[in-house]
Amino acid sequence: MRIGVLTAGGDCPGLNAVIRSVVHRAITGYGDEVIGFEDGFKGLLDGHYRPLDLNAVSGILARGGTILGSARLERARLREAAENCGELQRQYGIDVLIPIGGEGTLTASRMLSDAGMPVVGVPKTIDNDISATDRTFGFDTAVTVATEAIDRLKTTAESHQRVMVVEVMGRHAGWIALESGMAGGAHGICLPERPFQVEDLVKMVEERFDRGKKFAVICVAEGAHPAEGSMDYRKGEIDQFGHERFQGIGNRLAAELEHRLGKEAKPVILGHVQRGGVPTAYDRVLATRFGWHAVEAAHHGDFGRMTSLRGTDVVMVPLADAVTQLKKVPTDRMNEAESVF
Amino acid sequence: MRIGVLTAGGDCPGLNAVIRSVVHRAITGYGDEVIGFEDGFKGLLDGHYRPLDLNAVSGILARGGTILGSARLERARLREAAENCGELQRQYGIDVLIPIGGEGTLTASRMLSDAGMPVVGVPKTIDNDISATDRTFGFDTAVTVATEAIDRLKTTAESHQRVMVVEVMGRHAGWIALESGMAGGAHGICLPERPFQVEDLVKMVEERFDRGKKFAVICVAEGAHPAEGSMDYRKGEIDQFGHERFQGIGNRLAAELEHRLGKEAKPVILGHVQRGGVPTAYDRVLATRFGWHAVEAAHHGDFGRMTSLRGTDVVMVPLADAVTQLKKVPTDRMNEAESVF
Amino acid sequence: MRIGVLTAGGDCPGLNAVIRSVVHRAITGYGDEVIGFEDGFKGLLDGHYRPLDLNAVSGILARGGTILGSARLERARLREAAENCGELQRQYGIDVLIPIGGEGTLTASRMLSDAGMPVVGVPKTIDNDISATDRTFGFDTAVTVATEAIDRLKTTAESHQRVMVVEVMGRHAGWIALESGMAGGAHGICLPERPFQVEDLVKMVEERFDRGKKFAVICVAEGAHPAEGSMDYRKGEIDQFGHERFQGIGNRLAAELEHRLGKEAKPVILGHVQRGGVPTAYDRVLATRFGWHAVEAAHHGDFGRMTSLRGTDVVMVPLADAVTQLKKVPTDRMNEAESVF
Amino acid sequence: MRIGVLTAGGDCPGLNAVIRSVVHRAITGYGDEVIGFEDGFKGLLDGHYRPLDLNAVSGILARGGTILGSARLERARLREAAENCGELQRQYGIDVLIPIGGEGTLTASRMLSDAGMPVVGVPKTIDNDISATDRTFGFDTAVTVATEAIDRLKTTAESHQRVMVVEVMGRHAGWIALESGMAGGAHGICLPERPFQVEDLVKMVEERFDRGKKFAVICVAEGAHPAEGSMDYRKGEIDQFGHERFQGIGNRLAAELEHRLGKEAKPVILGHVQRGGVPTAYDRVLATRFGWHAVEAAHHGDFGRMTSLRGTDVVMVPLADAVTQLKKVPTDRMNEAESVF
Repeated sequence: MRIGVLTAGGDCPGLNAVIRSVVHRAITGYGDEVIGFEDGFKGLLDGHYRPLDLNAVSGILARGGTILGSARLERARLREAAENCGELQRQYGIDVLIPIGGEGTLTASRMLSDAGMPVVGVPKTIDNDISATDRTFGFDTAVTVATEAIDRLKTTAESHQRVMVVEVMGRHAGWIALESGMAGGAHGICLPERPFQVEDLVKMVEERFDRGKKFAVICVAEGAHPAEGSMDYRKGEIDQFGHERFQGIGNRLAAELEHRLGKEAKPVILGHVQRGGVPTAYDRVLATRFGWHAVEAAHHGDFGRMTSLRGTDVVMVPLADAVTQLKKVPTDRMNEAESVF
Repeated sequence: MRIGVLTAGGDCPGLNAVIRSVVHRAITGYGDEVIGFEDGFKGLLDGHYRPLDLNAVSGILARGGTILGSARLERARLREAAENCGELQRQYGIDVLIPIGGEGTLTASRMLSDAGMPVVGVPKTIDNDISATDRTFGFDTAVTVATEAIDRLKTTAESHQRVMVVEVMGRHAGWIALESGMAGGAHGICLPERPFQVEDLVKMVEERFDRGKKFAVICVAEGAHPAEGSMDYRKGEIDQFGHERFQGIGNRLAAELEHRLGKEAKPVILGHVQRGGVPTAYDRVLATRFGWHAVEAAHHGDFGRMTSLRGTDVVMVPLADAVTQLKKVPTDRMNEAESVF
Repeated sequence: MRIGVLTAGGDCPGLNAVIRSVVHRAITGYGDEVIGFEDGFKGLLDGHYRPLDLNAVSGILARGGTILGSARLERARLREAAENCGELQRQYGIDVLIPIGGEGTLTASRMLSDAGMPVVGVPKTIDNDISATDRTFGFDTAVTVATEAIDRLKTTAESHQRVMVVEVMGRHAGWIALESGMAGGAHGICLPERPFQVEDLVKMVEERFDRGKKFAVICVAEGAHPAEGSMDYRKGEIDQFGHERFQGIGNRLAAELEHRLGKEAKPVILGHVQRGGVPTAYDRVLATRFGWHAVEAAHHGDFGRMTSLRGTDVVMVPLADAVTQLKKVPTDRMNEAESVF
Repeated sequence: MRIGVLTAGGDCPGLNAVIRSVVHRAITGYGDEVIGFEDGFKGLLDGHYRPLDLNAVSGILARGGTILGSARLERARLREAAENCGELQRQYGIDVLIPIGGEGTLTASRMLSDAGMPVVGVPKTIDNDISATDRTFGFDTAVTVATEAIDRLKTTAESHQRVMVVEVMGRHAGWIALESGMAGGAHGICLPERPFQVEDLVKMVEERFDRGKKFAVICVAEGAHPAEGSMDYRKGEIDQFGHERFQGIGNRLAAELEHRLGKEAKPVILGHVQRGGVPTAYDRVLATRFGWHAVEAAHHGDFGRMTSLRGTDVVMVPLADAVTQLKKVPTDRMNEAESVF
């Protein structure tokens, strides 16, 4: 069998572990050939690829990033790929394509699959917001990095009687904020799933200071936003350089809390450190299992599906399931955390 | 409600996170009182306990060990506890006892529960071998520590053309060896669940050297053992100082490989570093959820049960389920790893 | 002897290690008494202090922050302290005061010393910019945190063909940027000591892309600034919320590079994570040695001086030396790094 | 100029950082050519080498091990190298040889230098026992790994009322034990430089238990040994498999303490994890500076010397100075630590 593999979308610790696992299983398990397309679907369309043998994936298990690169592709060119997918398949002589990517990539994969390409997908998102799988690799690393930051900020906040607002990733789903907030013992957690009343946060901090706990750490997802009327905040505000990011919720909330509390409140925007670098052991194991099962599915002709963690098992689910609904933090999970506002 | 909590058995990162979570949920959620027994069931029998308020659990979320201590108790005294459990309950005025512990502790908890004590258990084992739950806290930390060690050893092995044998914990189940071996990319993994042929390991190393990969890392669970006739190894061999540990499988296997290969083979016995210290973010979240649900169960009168992770949910399962069968690594999971011998 | 100790100024990993070391050496070495003033000089003036025995410093060696707290004090009140220092000394019955702090604290300490108070100072700054000592504790931790961030960002930058601008601490001296930039292998380093030509950075990135290295990481100290005429940047620009920080050099430089290069350039502002949390082993050792020598100096009547690392030795130097001149990165050190612009 | 570089001796985090730095400085600073000999002096004698350009050292700054490999060479073959060094130099067309290694390597380098080879050495030892330099790279990483282990063991020891004996590296000099013991807050430290009385350790532990501190952590260098008559211990005892290591001082001391105290005492032998893997930021900076200065020295014709850290400066010192005397822990430094026995 000849297998094509590609990585698309944003960075995610564990991508290389999947690639390595696909290559290992395919070559040592089945004597397959594997080729890797460069820069995602772009390499598929433009004919940029290279053979992947055991040496090509040596030493990459714990490395961040992706040895195959990743780049955005316009929708029009994706349609082009779908229309010519029979020809593309012949051109490269591949029996199956294994795209590793997030929601956008899986949607594109479904398009190719519907157009006749034999596809086995591997889901990827540090946000953990794909509903068809219990967890995705990359998420544990992101939570770990964010938790380490909260651990560090807590001692500073405590020693200096200060409020710290940590902004973590999560545009549409608050999983990283929820779990790093719980793991770091944040006193307040704000999620995209539940608009917060800034007044409640103010009250919480004041009560802490009254009780002699003269500091607070608030963990806020980048996609969190105040309830209407609670605070002046226009999401996506553009600064003089045309950048939206300078007025993210973390900076804005810290400024607002400082103003209302009359106490120092400092923002820390973690940003891209959450999505790069060495994956945690958890993510390496999950990524390796996903790669292994993708090759198995390819050999079973189990196309149009993707790998998924269900409990302790890796199973195959329809690609369609991945993209119909975002997995948001349910109310039950918010309740467990207690400090979600 | 008045809640008694205790920790028993070996050390396990996350114990303090459970204690903190029980106290937080009980006090802020229900206005309960909480007392903590010292040194496990010993404190319950000997009347050593202290009240646990919010201040008592401040700052312990990320701390290793257990603020309540833990000590072994003879079976006879446990029976004594079971026989007097009505009186003990009255003596401390507790409405429920929340023991946090491993197989032995849960068995004892079941004895108390059968004898009429209202008990809600929280399972604990770094070995991940309790069958009634998908995962236990502490396991992720142990795997993380072991993986970091393998990462470090690999570069040394490679630079010096050497075989490294890493012995990790796991007396009866090989989960730590399996997952740290996969995450670290060990070339050989030996588990208690499958007796290994030392000759197969020898062959694997020789083939690697022939292919120009002049090093190998082998990850072996402390409970792994050679297939009969494969290698001279008497488990539990006693040295001149009366210590069994000096002839563990890690040391023994390294010596055997060195002898058979005619190449340097060094053992590294990780030991207790795997079971102490700061828990990973994953373990802190799981431990916090277990504590929260234990208090919920107590208020729902859901006694004789323990917390359990099922997929992404924490549910309550009968204490009996915890202790009937050890969760061993199944063949499916060994196959995924490929390097299990 | 009765020793008073206090911590003042910004957070710095290792403060607790100094406090612990002072208490250990004083009590077990000399049978002294130690009291700790709370929130820096404020506690000294307001009479907030507590006795510090061995139990009070148990378990704090590796903890971030300071168990004594720290707060800013207006200059007027410091003068008040200096004027009444004889009375303050009598009031608390202390034979020596050991203030642990940065430039401001050491200046204040010198004022007290000049006014007759027996003072032994311990220098503290994560910026490493005190000229009277080879190194200060806290610096190694800051460099370590920044380096870990650069390590993580590099893989993302590489996989996504992107420029990353990491802003690290260092308002007046660029030591953190220099060493984390070197340790992380940053392709460009910008320091307060040398105004940079943005055009040179643009050229470096373009040459990298031409050579097929389609990414770059630039490490910039918060106090770095462009050479005149090189780029529009008004330091200290105030945004609509009255906050200067939103237009720091990291954000501004990323925007400028994105504009000039026509390539994605993302800023990451590390902020306070660099100055909190568990100190590195190096910082714990240095802090412990400083504390030990401060007590020795106190018993030798070596007042008006502070601890200082010279080569491998800890020696005592006049407080005056600490505050006369900022230790800036010399040209020699910039040359070694090669990537300083 | 044409530069030959090689690494010899045991593994040491930072070797790759030196190689990278030599190549960077030589090529971008001077337009030199660099070749790397494989497996140390063996490659020099057997003609195994490869050109090292910028691509060859891309991505290795933070990687453990050495891309050039390292192997032991018999003394006879080293003499052979010295006798033929003029011819070897002509054969490879090198203007200078930069060997990176420990005491043995530096001695060999001096032989070559005395025989007429232009040599610039770079000292390397995780043990920090080379007297001609304040510090060596690799040492900080070893201390960091050992300190993390002690941090983890402490919580377990405390929760379980147990004595832990951690054996760290250091055959002839106790620097790693001293600094990791101080950084980890070990209650006892045993160094090769001072034979210990086991009775003193027993007393210390008993006093701790009496004071209610029912645990202790003892950090012992592998080369530490009891004072005569204090405890039965024959260094280098051989077990039935011909391995000396099974009866190291860590295991032996734990057994002895368990016997004398009647309390559980567990040994942990850290072993090779201390000398592999990702170097700390400190070690990467020092290694990079050493590499840079080695190339400078080569261009200044500063042969027969090696790089050395003196205070904050890197200077060149005669190779002879490196090998005349081992740098042992002086009494002053032991006193600072207080817990040295």
